[in-house]
Amino acid sequence: MSKSALSPTRAENYPEWYQAVIKAADMAELSGVRGCMVIKPWGWAIWERIQSIVDGMIKATGHENCYFPIFIPLSYFQKEAEHVEGFAKEMAVVTHHRLINQGGKLVPDPASKLDEPLIVRPTSETIIGEAMAKEIQSYRDLPLLWNQWANVVRWEMRTRMFLRSAEFLWQEGHTAHATESEAREETILIQKAYQDLIENIMAIPVILGAKSESERFPGAVDSLTLETMMQDGRALQAGTSHYLGQNFARALDIKYQTREGSVEYVHTTSWAVTTRLIGALIMAHGDDDGLVLPPRLAPQQVVIVPILRDESARAAVLEYCNKLAAEIAPQSYAGEAVRVKLDARDEEAITKRWNWIKKGVPVILEIGPKDIEKDGVAVTRRDDMAGKKTFPGRSEFIAGLPALLDEIQNGIFARALKMQQSRMRTDIKTWAEFESYFDKNEDSAYDTSPGFVRASWSGDEAATEAKIKALGVSVRCLPFDQNISGNCIITGAPAKYEAIFARAY
Amino acid sequence: MSKSALSPTRAENYPEWYQAVIKAADMAELSGVRGCMVIKPWGWAIWERIQSIVDGMIKATGHENCYFPIFIPLSYFQKEAEHVEGFAKEMAVVTHHRLINQGGKLVPDPASKLDEPLIVRPTSETIIGEAMAKEIQSYRDLPLLWNQWANVVRWEMRTRMFLRSAEFLWQEGHTAHATESEAREETILIQKAYQDLIENIMAIPVILGAKSESERFPGAVDSLTLETMMQDGRALQAGTSHYLGQNFARALDIKYQTREGSVEYVHTTSWAVTTRLIGALIMAHGDDDGLVLPPRLAPQQVVIVPILRDESARAAVLEYCNKLAAEIAPQSYAGEAVRVKLDARDEEAITKRWNWIKKGVPVILEIGPKDIEKDGVAVTRRDDMAGKKTFPGRSEFIAGLPALLDEIQNGIFARALKMQQSRMRTDIKTWAEFESYFDKNEDSAYDTSPGFVRASWSGDEAATEAKIKALGVSVRCLPFDQNISGNCIITGAPAKYEAIFARAY
Repeated sequence: MSKSALSPTRAENYPEWYQAVIKAADMAELSGVRGCMVIKPWGWAIWERIQSIVDGMIKATGHENCYFPIFIPLSYFQKEAEHVEGFAKEMAVVTHHRLINQGGKLVPDPASKLDEPLIVRPTSETIIGEAMAKEIQSYRDLPLLWNQWANVVRWEMRTRMFLRSAEFLWQEGHTAHATESEAREETILIQKAYQDLIENIMAIPVILGAKSESERFPGAVDSLTLETMMQDGRALQAGTSHYLGQNFARALDIKYQTREGSVEYVHTTSWAVTTRLIGALIMAHGDDDGLVLPPRLAPQQVVIVPILRDESARAAVLEYCNKLAAEIAPQSYAGEAVRVKLDARDEEAITKRWNWIKKGVPVILEIGPKDIEKDGVAVTRRDDMAGKKTFPGRSEFIAGLPALLDEIQNGIFARALKMQQSRMRTDIKTWAEFESYFDKNEDSAYDTSPGFVRASWSGDEAATEAKIKALGVSVRCLPFDQNISGNCIITGAPAKYEAIFARAY
Repeated sequence: MSKSALSPTRAENYPEWYQAVIKAADMAELSGVRGCMVIKPWGWAIWERIQSIVDGMIKATGHENCYFPIFIPLSYFQKEAEHVEGFAKEMAVVTHHRLINQGGKLVPDPASKLDEPLIVRPTSETIIGEAMAKEIQSYRDLPLLWNQWANVVRWEMRTRMFLRSAEFLWQEGHTAHATESEAREETILIQKAYQDLIENIMAIPVILGAKSESERFPGAVDSLTLETMMQDGRALQAGTSHYLGQNFARALDIKYQTREGSVEYVHTTSWAVTTRLIGALIMAHGDDDGLVLPPRLAPQQVVIVPILRDESARAAVLEYCNKLAAEIAPQSYAGEAVRVKLDARDEEAITKRWNWIKKGVPVILEIGPKDIEKDGVAVTRRDDMAGKKTFPGRSEFIAGLPALLDEIQNGIFARALKMQQSRMRTDIKTWAEFESYFDKNEDSAYDTSPGFVRASWSGDEAATEAKIKALGVSVRCLPFDQNISGNCIITGAPAKYEAIFARAY
């Protein structure tokens, strides 16, 4: 059995393994502020890749970026009733605007108390809706397709880096349309763009569907979701796209004059992906040596580690490595120049190699005097740590690099898909089976813990929750490809839907 | 006299003209939150251009992006004494983390009061310093070159869009170095990168210098500045780069082990440019028809407006315009593909033309049936609204486009430089002359209001302030190219510096 870089391993303690990956890959760390994290350069580089890809998709579909205030007056939250219920709970509340020195200690100045408290935005439907109401006059102003990249705050009690932090980063799209069908098309367009990101770039297979009523966004008529499976069998919602009907339009008075001259409320949508995606990435592909990055997402696809032990060969090795990097850089994979880095830091080669393994770089090359003699490279494939290093010739390696990156990209996706399919139970037909399947200890090893159950469902939220909540299970989504047969697995009542049940992050 | 698009004009009311440009170019608007603005798509597109250029410069010089929490515990501010004095005043203070429903009204839940209030970051030296202290162990970890793109909040009493808003956006670089000289070199490197952005991209000439003691960043040993002149003669600090000495290192215990084994405090720097640059852009180049964008900065460099009055010619006009756009797009200027847009919106051509004039697009083409007949284009140059439209042939226009854009870029810079030089008084030698020069009514027309005075100065802050504050004047900077002669123009004491005096934003 090979020794792994991380302790604990996934099998030993999955939640602690997750934290260990973040530390080993130097992606983020806790800050001195409760529930807030510091995103370090490697974590941020991954987020920048996601941003750049999503931003391109958003612009290619006609959306425009803007920016709205971080603060939302408290009264705005009271405007949409369901939104209040869902959001107006755990939020950061600004009540003062000045500090004073009181006996050598800074305290909020009582004289600076705000007439109306301000909320640090947990989401921006209300404040963006206000701006929409000003912007939209007639049908000519529709559709209005806005997006912003921003930080938001939700005062979570139990936080985990990337997965659930008090402050997180996201894009939030907000659009207004003349008709319900146009608005619903928008939510599907976005869901598909997210699918493209998550499957084709991040190599995580998704299940497309809609949320059941109790899991919908507060104020939404319909919430579309992209559900992913982590290696411990839990579900993680990787993106959402909401049809908000006319709820926010009525609450915020967002109206337009039709071509015929009548005045109507618009139909709005909102949609988001967040830094949570980085948590999904870690848990979908990571292994006991650290992060595993699909090449299309990786900030660096190839890292060259020179072996500089032999001082007399140092100059020759560095020259060879520089030449190699210069030959790799013009290669292209998936429409982009290959991202290659020469790691010439003053550290042991073995330390550097393991640094990059833990950071998940797809291809790591080690170059020493022996490789130069053979005009070759020593290749480590991050997706196959069990496999041995290979030693192709230099030009053979370069010529085959795009194909190699593609093979790694596809292999990582195939592995995740295989896991998702193998742990998707469609054969569970009774409540007794269901209960016994999920009634495993939460501490069961990550690869034997329960996965997803796909089964017929009544849609009776209250009766369902009463039975499944104790198992820590919830309705994750109603997949688009519905296949209803028999009665509800939970309540025995006639089935209205097919649903996916799972534990979730 | 030609009629202008904006009312009031610069001469009529400069401050109101500024707001009129923002509205006419649809760049931003006030929000329902005191002092916070909504940055609309055109304003945001300009900020994205600035971001992308600055981000490229930051990365090219070896800096890495990261992200730090938006909240800073109150106690952190107390750690650096001068920093407290300078910053711990007007800030947004979070005191509660939950709302409750009290008789149908949401209020902060008294039970959710935080033990320690959190400050919405006005700047991040303290929280990033905390992370640096963890990150840095030895000389091998230096220099540490971090940057973040973030929003910050300073509770300003009198706000103006872009120039001074409660929330604004910026990049803040924070670096740590082994020695003072390395840290000082860093601040100069960054000042030069900012100069490149502001002069070569934004076409605004800068004066490089250092701040006098009273104008320094709170906690800094030295603050470098880039001062620009607006069309009303006022100064605007367009960027800053601070050498912080070991002040924050001592306060936050940021130490490293030297190669020789001793333990030393690091030397830190911080530096920033902000959305304020957009205010500078408006006031440096804008005219009575709206915004004027230098081509290298402009989100769109060429906009094509089809004239579609004649329904029978509509298809032919659109086809010609599409072909024209396709021919322009592969042209390259300043190392980038030309940014061209065909505005096929369902509006009058004249309305669209004026839309783009107000938005400051460098080159606007109008294409109607007559232009097609001549295989030509009708060209409006935004930098020369007094000049007539020209009507070159299509291929002649395309072949000359890079040169035309360059001419516009250089012309805008030359005009701003000429203004800066012509309003830089070096001939004022006595306090009486100084007082009389600045003792003009604040409402004097923008182009006859006082500019900059460059003169010898004692460096006596208190005595100087006592005399110049009443004139609304301050010491803007000590320019790098010092030329001291005679006594201090303000106090008559022996001169230690040459300084630039001006009113400022």
